[in-house]
Amino acid sequence: MKIFASIAAASALLALSAPASAQFAKPEDAIKYRQSALSVMGTHFGRVGAMASGRAPYDAKVAADNAEVVAAMSKLPWAGFMPGTDKGNTKAKPEIWTEQAKFKEYNEKLQAETTKLAAASKTGNLDSLKTAFAATADTCKACHDAFRNK
Amino acid sequence: MKIFASIAAASALLALSAPASAQFAKPEDAIKYRQSALSVMGTHFGRVGAMASGRAPYDAKVAADNAEVVAAMSKLPWAGFMPGTDKGNTKAKPEIWTEQAKFKEYNEKLQAETTKLAAASKTGNLDSLKTAFAATADTCKACHDAFRNK
Repeated sequence: MKIFASIAAASALLALSAPASAQFAKPEDAIKYRQSALSVMGTHFGRVGAMASGRAPYDAKVAADNAEVVAAMSKLPWAGFMPGTDKGNTKAKPEIWTEQAKFKEYNEKLQAETTKLAAASKTGNLDSLKTAFAATADTCKACHDAFRNK
Repeated sequence: MKIFASIAAASALLALSAPASAQFAKPEDAIKYRQSALSVMGTHFGRVGAMASGRAPYDAKVAADNAEVVAAMSKLPWAGFMPGTDKGNTKAKPEIWTEQAKFKEYNEKLQAETTKLAAASKTGNLDSLKTAFAATADTCKACHDAFRNK
């Protein structure tokens, strides 16, 4: 799936090619960026979840289209968690910066799970979608529990 | 470029498969969604612009990676301009809903220009990038002038 490889490669390069602080002029820009990317991801993830939970009728193509956007968006937010963005309009816990390895592990876990979600959504099998959705949702929750204030 | 075809197909289907009002539970959700998608797009477009204008050193790969995200994101915001989302925390002008054909034309023009921008960015030619960046920026501006309050 070229879309994932492509954005993943882009994100990896963006992370390598410049110090994170050079990517955003101001801390609040980085905060707004990560919140925006997470929000777009959440909207599309919610649509998959509505189908996985039976709140919306299952439509395999709609599920796949939304899951694909989720997987693509899951590459983006992390660049916004640059040093100095722990203050202001954010629920980010300081542990993001004191436990960087763990935070990065969660970021990568999410990207792996959303890739699986997109793959599952393409099978047209609702049970597969439910399983992948639950695994992805667990990953969201684990990271939020560890790194996001209520 | 499968990424564009893929997200374009997804957006087209999302638009067809359900009334827009069914995609967002509340008008403010739609407003937040479109603002978030436009903001992420703007961040990456700004990075291309920094290179096109000489404010940042030209790096063909970074330009291409950012332009690719711009092109992908340019498919998303429009679903958020559903009826009933002209009030609240928004700079959207009422003309969006009274001149739907014109608004849609601008949306499609932007998607076409960002696709050209992504293609130009892949040539590794800074002049091509500058030309495509200027054309895309003009399209942003035309739509903002017509449909966005200051």
